Amino acid sequence: MSATGKRIVLASRPIGEPKPSDFRLEECPIPTPGAGEVLLRTIWLSLDPYMRGRMSEGPSYAQPVPIDGVMEGGTVSEVIASNNPAFTRGDIVLSRAGWQTHAVSDGKGLSKIDPNIAPISTAVGVLGMPGMTAYTGLLDIGKPQVGETVVVAAASGAVGSAVGQIAKIKGARAVGIAGGKDKCAYVKNELGFDDCLDHRDPDLAAKLKNACPKGIDVYFENVGGAVFEAVFPLLNAFARVPVCGLIAHYNDTQAVAPKWAPALMRNVLTKRLTIRGFIVSDFAARHGDFLRDMSAWVREGKVKHKEFVTEGLDSAPAAFMGLLKGANFGKQLVRVGPDKT
Amino acid sequence: MSATGKRIVLASRPIGEPKPSDFRLEECPIPTPGAGEVLLRTIWLSLDPYMRGRMSEGPSYAQPVPIDGVMEGGTVSEVIASNNPAFTRGDIVLSRAGWQTHAVSDGKGLSKIDPNIAPISTAVGVLGMPGMTAYTGLLDIGKPQVGETVVVAAASGAVGSAVGQIAKIKGARAVGIAGGKDKCAYVKNELGFDDCLDHRDPDLAAKLKNACPKGIDVYFENVGGAVFEAVFPLLNAFARVPVCGLIAHYNDTQAVAPKWAPALMRNVLTKRLTIRGFIVSDFAARHGDFLRDMSAWVREGKVKHKEFVTEGLDSAPAAFMGLLKGANFGKQLVRVGPDKT
Repeated sequence: MSATGKRIVLASRPIGEPKPSDFRLEECPIPTPGAGEVLLRTIWLSLDPYMRGRMSEGPSYAQPVPIDGVMEGGTVSEVIASNNPAFTRGDIVLSRAGWQTHAVSDGKGLSKIDPNIAPISTAVGVLGMPGMTAYTGLLDIGKPQVGETVVVAAASGAVGSAVGQIAKIKGARAVGIAGGKDKCAYVKNELGFDDCLDHRDPDLAAKLKNACPKGIDVYFENVGGAVFEAVFPLLNAFARVPVCGLIAHYNDTQAVAPKWAPALMRNVLTKRLTIRGFIVSDFAARHGDFLRDMSAWVREGKVKHKEFVTEGLDSAPAAFMGLLKGANFGKQLVRVGPDKT
Repeated sequence: MSATGKRIVLASRPIGEPKPSDFRLEECPIPTPGAGEVLLRTIWLSLDPYMRGRMSEGPSYAQPVPIDGVMEGGTVSEVIASNNPAFTRGDIVLSRAGWQTHAVSDGKGLSKIDPNIAPISTAVGVLGMPGMTAYTGLLDIGKPQVGETVVVAAASGAVGSAVGQIAKIKGARAVGIAGGKDKCAYVKNELGFDDCLDHRDPDLAAKLKNACPKGIDVYFENVGGAVFEAVFPLLNAFARVPVCGLIAHYNDTQAVAPKWAPALMRNVLTKRLTIRGFIVSDFAARHGDFLRDMSAWVREGKVKHKEFVTEGLDSAPAAFMGLLKGANFGKQLVRVGPDKT
């Protein structure tokens, strides 16, 4: 073990798109765990769109990262020293250690990962927060019925890919939207969506209409922007719109009224739409159901997942900036350290 | 019985506010009921904001009234001739006979009203569609909890008055919004709302903030416009917004993006709002619960109601145009005929 670790802190709050100078890589002494504490070594760092929100001030469901604070993030970590009887050296745990190679924890909020059940990286992917976001948002708010049409964007990503595959399991028609030919082909051919459209296509609205001949019953909203504009006129009576993200807007420097805005409430009324925002922790009580179902679906090959890995903590800022533009193809992970030292 | 009846038909589709020439009063022979039919004499005609929607073409949850067609509406009617074994001369029934003195019905959709239980006019008011709209929207979508704050506009009207009083029964704080000093005083002093504000007050937003020191948990949306603008920034995390009407917009000739539009979806996400449109028939299964609870509350004096009556079918167009501007004070009814002939 080297005597120094590394961390990435928020150097400045981005205006619009984050740029490299908004992040700062620092070397720092590896901390020493105190009484009741454990020392964690990061193996996998998960990068997720919500982190853009944490870089900004302003009201949200969570506090922003302070300037000079370590960027937040979920990690898969190894316990490399323990003064806590609940943890042993060598334990693999799910943590919120953030963008750093090492962290100290009092054990609260850590959960052990069994490496024999599934690759440990899935604990921040299909069997973790993104998978559970898809599961709860789709099933508890979207409630797709047999024969209904479910639309989801970022369909090759960690959340969207699970949404469409779960929709198929429930007997619904799944239509994805993704960026580019390769992702669309993967979503259709590998993940088994009924159709997948390119959000860069200038004819997106017309093509989406063709792909949803019976309209849209569930739109799982994780992007906003042009996709919602195309979806909005196609929503059926009693359609449900779970909202868990708006990645198309996270870099907005000014808020502009969307094209659908003048007609929104009238449509909510006449079509009896349900629009409901959520974050995964709202459904904490469903964690057991999620793990049971999703583990089985992954094991049976009914839910496939793809990882997109960049190497080394240093790669995190560029990888994150890429994620906001859709440069990743699958769940974005940073390999911070080896599985075993 | 005179040999001729009267009816009011839609003469032309209004552009913006309906005007007298959009309606036409006609004399017509009183129809003769055929086999299995009954002849109805209208006693009370209910006027309700939704009727503005039926005057326009364009997508809604119901078909528009055709040009030259009788204006739609709920009525309390007397059976004055019956060829249907289910009904007897003298029965008082709830009907959708529309804006006319007489109508023929095959009996489908009629329901008998017991004049001994409550004044028969309540069947189109507090114990009818408006009351049930309040009951189901508030309880099944709004779900007010003890100590939460419920805001409703048109608070002296048929729906709003019931919403606030049911909120109080459920232990919530009820804040009404109404047009003018007299209505506000009635809502506070007679109906027992915790507060009531005048929507014409230029300081509405600031006053609403003062009246809701702990924010707003349920906003029962039946008006839109400036009221929703004032409400929107005060919505708490997990707030629920049942949407049953948008009377402020029914006369809009062009749709304009509301001030809250650029921030709507971001707030839906970060505050995990639920916005859900409904019409009362979506909750038909709750009719028994509604009648049981609301009848008891009215009997016990926990839900008070006020009627605003204009005399004669001829008065309906002016009364309806007034309703859209808030000229009524209480449930708007037209006395079309006497209780007994």
